[in-house]
Amino acid sequence: MSKADAKEYMVKKEPYYYPIGDEIDRYEAAYDVRMPIMLKGPTGCGKSRFVEHMAWKLKKPLITVACNEDMTASDLVGRFLLDVNGTKWQDGPLTTAARIGAICYLDEVVEARQDTTVVIHPLTDHRRQLPLEKKGELVDAHPDFQIVISYNPGYQSMMKDLKQSTKQRFGAMSFDYPEAEVESQIVAHESGVDAATAERLVQVAQSSRNLKGHGLDEGMSTRLLIYAAQLITKGIAPVAACQMALVEPITDDPDMRDTLGAAVNTFFA
Amino acid sequence: MSKADAKEYMVKKEPYYYPIGDEIDRYEAAYDVRMPIMLKGPTGCGKSRFVEHMAWKLKKPLITVACNEDMTASDLVGRFLLDVNGTKWQDGPLTTAARIGAICYLDEVVEARQDTTVVIHPLTDHRRQLPLEKKGELVDAHPDFQIVISYNPGYQSMMKDLKQSTKQRFGAMSFDYPEAEVESQIVAHESGVDAATAERLVQVAQSSRNLKGHGLDEGMSTRLLIYAAQLITKGIAPVAACQMALVEPITDDPDMRDTLGAAVNTFFA
Amino acid sequence: MSKADAKEYMVKKEPYYYPIGDEIDRYEAAYDVRMPIMLKGPTGCGKSRFVEHMAWKLKKPLITVACNEDMTASDLVGRFLLDVNGTKWQDGPLTTAARIGAICYLDEVVEARQDTTVVIHPLTDHRRQLPLEKKGELVDAHPDFQIVISYNPGYQSMMKDLKQSTKQRFGAMSFDYPEAEVESQIVAHESGVDAATAERLVQVAQSSRNLKGHGLDEGMSTRLLIYAAQLITKGIAPVAACQMALVEPITDDPDMRDTLGAAVNTFFA
Amino acid sequence: MSKADAKEYMVKKEPYYYPIGDEIDRYEAAYDVRMPIMLKGPTGCGKSRFVEHMAWKLKKPLITVACNEDMTASDLVGRFLLDVNGTKWQDGPLTTAARIGAICYLDEVVEARQDTTVVIHPLTDHRRQLPLEKKGELVDAHPDFQIVISYNPGYQSMMKDLKQSTKQRFGAMSFDYPEAEVESQIVAHESGVDAATAERLVQVAQSSRNLKGHGLDEGMSTRLLIYAAQLITKGIAPVAACQMALVEPITDDPDMRDTLGAAVNTFFA
Amino acid sequence: MSKADAKEYMVKKEPYYYPIGDEIDRYEAAYDVRMPIMLKGPTGCGKSRFVEHMAWKLKKPLITVACNEDMTASDLVGRFLLDVNGTKWQDGPLTTAARIGAICYLDEVVEARQDTTVVIHPLTDHRRQLPLEKKGELVDAHPDFQIVISYNPGYQSMMKDLKQSTKQRFGAMSFDYPEAEVESQIVAHESGVDAATAERLVQVAQSSRNLKGHGLDEGMSTRLLIYAAQLITKGIAPVAACQMALVEPITDDPDMRDTLGAAVNTFFA
Amino acid sequence: MSKADAKEYMVKKEPYYYPIGDEIDRYEAAYDVRMPIMLKGPTGCGKSRFVEHMAWKLKKPLITVACNEDMTASDLVGRFLLDVNGTKWQDGPLTTAARIGAICYLDEVVEARQDTTVVIHPLTDHRRQLPLEKKGELVDAHPDFQIVISYNPGYQSMMKDLKQSTKQRFGAMSFDYPEAEVESQIVAHESGVDAATAERLVQVAQSSRNLKGHGLDEGMSTRLLIYAAQLITKGIAPVAACQMALVEPITDDPDMRDTLGAAVNTFFA
Repeated sequence: MSKADAKEYMVKKEPYYYPIGDEIDRYEAAYDVRMPIMLKGPTGCGKSRFVEHMAWKLKKPLITVACNEDMTASDLVGRFLLDVNGTKWQDGPLTTAARIGAICYLDEVVEARQDTTVVIHPLTDHRRQLPLEKKGELVDAHPDFQIVISYNPGYQSMMKDLKQSTKQRFGAMSFDYPEAEVESQIVAHESGVDAATAERLVQVAQSSRNLKGHGLDEGMSTRLLIYAAQLITKGIAPVAACQMALVEPITDDPDMRDTLGAAVNTFFA
Repeated sequence: MSKADAKEYMVKKEPYYYPIGDEIDRYEAAYDVRMPIMLKGPTGCGKSRFVEHMAWKLKKPLITVACNEDMTASDLVGRFLLDVNGTKWQDGPLTTAARIGAICYLDEVVEARQDTTVVIHPLTDHRRQLPLEKKGELVDAHPDFQIVISYNPGYQSMMKDLKQSTKQRFGAMSFDYPEAEVESQIVAHESGVDAATAERLVQVAQSSRNLKGHGLDEGMSTRLLIYAAQLITKGIAPVAACQMALVEPITDDPDMRDTLGAAVNTFFA
Repeated sequence: MSKADAKEYMVKKEPYYYPIGDEIDRYEAAYDVRMPIMLKGPTGCGKSRFVEHMAWKLKKPLITVACNEDMTASDLVGRFLLDVNGTKWQDGPLTTAARIGAICYLDEVVEARQDTTVVIHPLTDHRRQLPLEKKGELVDAHPDFQIVISYNPGYQSMMKDLKQSTKQRFGAMSFDYPEAEVESQIVAHESGVDAATAERLVQVAQSSRNLKGHGLDEGMSTRLLIYAAQLITKGIAPVAACQMALVEPITDDPDMRDTLGAAVNTFFA
Repeated sequence: MSKADAKEYMVKKEPYYYPIGDEIDRYEAAYDVRMPIMLKGPTGCGKSRFVEHMAWKLKKPLITVACNEDMTASDLVGRFLLDVNGTKWQDGPLTTAARIGAICYLDEVVEARQDTTVVIHPLTDHRRQLPLEKKGELVDAHPDFQIVISYNPGYQSMMKDLKQSTKQRFGAMSFDYPEAEVESQIVAHESGVDAATAERLVQVAQSSRNLKGHGLDEGMSTRLLIYAAQLITKGIAPVAACQMALVEPITDDPDMRDTLGAAVNTFFA
Repeated sequence: MSKADAKEYMVKKEPYYYPIGDEIDRYEAAYDVRMPIMLKGPTGCGKSRFVEHMAWKLKKPLITVACNEDMTASDLVGRFLLDVNGTKWQDGPLTTAARIGAICYLDEVVEARQDTTVVIHPLTDHRRQLPLEKKGELVDAHPDFQIVISYNPGYQSMMKDLKQSTKQRFGAMSFDYPEAEVESQIVAHESGVDAATAERLVQVAQSSRNLKGHGLDEGMSTRLLIYAAQLITKGIAPVAACQMALVEPITDDPDMRDTLGAAVNTFFA
Repeated sequence: MSKADAKEYMVKKEPYYYPIGDEIDRYEAAYDVRMPIMLKGPTGCGKSRFVEHMAWKLKKPLITVACNEDMTASDLVGRFLLDVNGTKWQDGPLTTAARIGAICYLDEVVEARQDTTVVIHPLTDHRRQLPLEKKGELVDAHPDFQIVISYNPGYQSMMKDLKQSTKQRFGAMSFDYPEAEVESQIVAHESGVDAATAERLVQVAQSSRNLKGHGLDEGMSTRLLIYAAQLITKGIAPVAACQMALVEPITDDPDMRDTLGAAVNTFFA
């Protein structure tokens, strides 16, 4: 990413985001002091969309990194590549973000090895620096640079948690599924389904969310509701659409499928 | 795969596929909105054949990746190779599929490390993008691109399951062995065996499928029935053909072999 | 193996093989439909010899791969090597076999990592293709190509077993030690020992095979009997030869050595 | 870091540091005899700031390394890189520090693999040497060189501890959160919040610190108090600011959040 | 080892070896038929010396490989190295031995990963071939080639044992410490100590060997006796020499040291 | 280390060493017959200093290797490096020592992987050879070459111990902390503190050593006593100096700190 510039990472058009509370004000206050931010909440509730919206609103470039267990510090920071003239340094996404003043969003950061996340530490305290140890360079972060991480406290295993010394470098904002009315509007807006159907889909989702921890790891996400609504608009019968988009994806357990199927029938059959 | 083009990945001739229900309509509705699809079902029941059939029907290129535990994100996304002029980027199959607008089919995706599958996330939400972090490029998926994954809920171990944040990005379709009559037709069509023999082979398979979870990990698949039928058409005695194609491959347990052997004798001796 | 051709892999002279039953007919029927074959049976009972014999009989090239835990998919499929002009692709043994139409014999396939074996899947169903993902090439198997694997159900550990989705791609043939009379003939033929001594060696082996699972992991193989017979023809006393070739190799347990020593004395002292 | 010189690593401006006791005198005495120093204490209590302050006060360059589990000895010592003329050695941060006479600060050293830390041994006894085994060079440390490590005895796991043979090479200094009065001054100084608010924030923190080991891994750090104060100065209501900067970051447990929320309300509602 | 020739690996002068029984005849008979040989026995009892002696006696080159857990198949077989003209193949020790007709001695073969040892299989049956899969070459073993392995059944762990399919490719010869009289002669011959002292050293060793499995993993080896004798000839008092060469090396347990010290005093004080 | 010569590794000036018993005579006798030597004893008791002293006394070069878990056989033996003319071999420290006739000191050898230590075997028996398998060279050790290893039986874990086949290649010498009087002299000599203070520091250390195994992994080492004495000479109050150099480094347990603090007060307050 050596010749990356800020423009490439600008969010081109306004992402649809429906505010739940004062989260936009809070984020702006945090950004004002460039406080690192941690977004907490269940799968598919809109964390990534929110960051994208804020980057668009603040007119700052956004660099997103989907974290995973095999990600090394070099994947974030950069590495030497072989070139005709020998080795050439190539910035990783974190370094690029620090140089161009982007918001760097580390999605599902608990997936990364606990100790890989240590490389963000010098960027998250008063130093705001990133030492490129392999290159022998000390990058001072651009004044606009901010770091944002997300994680899902619901299904993180015992083995995967952030270290206290990482957590205590972040302000935190909790997200959850929107209120029923808001969620129905989102589903209708994103899929083109009618309001009544959207409401019923949300009711199905809510019954599933009550089963979290009682046989389900997670309830149905807003994203899945939009999938179901889209299938309905394409002519699939509502019960079949719910089966395909809401029930089948989240469980393999026959009893749980019956339970969820009954919920679908309650609202659609 | 840098110079790959769509033609190379077109399915040349219609794959034989016998529809069980409305799965073709459902898939087409899902493809219309480019919904990522998850195919669930036991070994050898026709999931791969179905995707191939749909790619042929929709006239879209198909790129299949057999997933495995040692597959890295780079195997999917691409890597730098050494060239006379230094390093050269080579797209992986996922990137090629995103560029040329192929259906990308990740077969047995639970075999891949949970966190390798994280690289497909940005391609499965509203972004439809694939960041090539090592290259510093953000690939916008071709409008025709769709992602399909398969997995077998029956034998996935505790250690191997998709993460909720992955599952909730997919609509799902369940597959199972076809009805007896349909399966007989398939066996006869694919092997050239007569209808009566095909029916008896299906009856053997069905007794084995009732033993799943009672000493057998899986029942006999349609594929094995076709093998047995082919051996019969080549002159092997039916009991010996069943032994070789149906019983020996699926169990090493002497008692279970006797049980299955008795089932074979019931229908063929 | 880029310039390998079929001739190099032809079996030059007829390997000595003594048929036990109709295994040659069964194999030929399976080869006729290019069915993938799995050979099951204990150590040293002649599985490898049988494949070699069939390759010779069918006049097809044979490529044997001794599988092991550290074998990667690249070891089977091929890899890029560095050359004066940059990187050059080199086919692995599986790819060579698919190109030249060889019988590819994966010996002791359970030793390979379960998921490495996944790379053979597209070669074992109707596709008969091998995708070289790293090279971006899709190899269509030569019409003569067939895949054969061997495994020993006796000592495979809990950790090492083929996946059902692999097993159900193969017809299977079970092997065991030959009948006493046949085995004596083989021992005499291969070592030059007289018939009476060969018979007594077989009797020793049979007592050991009854101890399998009762303190012995495996009984004495035909190969070890030939070793003992060879030592006898070189002038070593039969009891000493049995000690060296039959008893010492298969156990370190003093009690078991006494038991087996007693069996040796019964027939030779 | 081959052309690094001391100037690049000088601390340019005086870091704000509020002394708690005689730690500055103790450190200077230890530095006088170049004794290796180990700083112990909880997350965010000012260990890194203290080292920076001492480096500034002593006018010595400071090289900080954030340790992590994947850090190899080569990351500390250096490695060969490929160049137009073949391989070229590049010093790692420890080697650079030894050459230029810097204070080398290994932050969170317990994160590094126990045995990677072995490479610092010859620099921490009478030898004061660093053998670059791969290069075949024996570096004698610059007379100004000193090594400082930090670790947090509070959350180190059973698996992660320094070896006795490493510990016994260091003098040690314990750090803790400052007294309430001092901490309030720090919070006010760093955030610009008024003294009364700063005091109340410290009171919240102190209640959380009493919960350490009773449901909390760590209490709220001084750094988090400054975050909360900064949000307040940006117009966020104190209770919301505390929620975002003090409560949410340190726990995901609903009961603990209620308990901490009650503490916040006691002082701010 | 590409230009290695047989001369380099000839044993130049007769190694001192004192035959215990008919092991030389047995080995020669086995070599006559090129039977692979497994040497079993405790640490330091003379297995390596015996192979060296036989190589000298048979006038065959000897290539010894000290096996270890990290040894890969490539370490045995060979690998591509980078050269001015690209990559160049370099034979490993096993390949060199197969080409030049050496005795290849794999010392402590159980240390190698079980599956690395699989690469020797095709060299240990009727094929006597070594497939260099990475190079695409099939090496036919030189008529003089023989493979010899050693292992110590005494301390092999549960985790480390040869597979049956490996064991059943070898004839086996057991070694043990020599009879007292013979061992005394060896100790005297190798160290120059007088016969009486040598006898007493052997008596000390024998008491330790009775403790094997009762607090000692192994008794004192002949090699250690020679060490003790050498120290005595250099003027160290016998009790101190025994302490240094016999007791300290084999145990860290204070009680066991007392027990062994008492044995030393019985014979020397 | 390809152009290393003996001079670079000579110990330039006499290291301070205070003999405890006849260890110098014993070592010289062992060196006379080039017996490999194992030094056993607790952390910081002077093992490394002793080897350095002996190398100085015998006027032999000394090459020290701090062993660690990630050390490979190549780190000891050498490897190929890429050069303008292709690959170039570079001797590792063990090979250099064998070539130039140095004493090769492997410090904390139990840290190395058990099987990496196997590479030293051929250098520790009558062969005195080091096979460079990757280079195809057999290095005959220089007549002056000797190998010395150290290990600390006190804290070696169950997982880390030398193999019997390694142990039985070494004579062994046990070290412990010196007698009180001697230790006081060492402390006074190395720090410049007065005799009375040195004695009291030794008394503190001795109380801590009695706690070994009763809450302490190790007692205070001589090195720590020297640290405390140095701080005192720099003007730090004795109690504070003891806290910093003796108590804090060796324990994080509050009770144990109180116990040790009381011991300090007994002698200094």
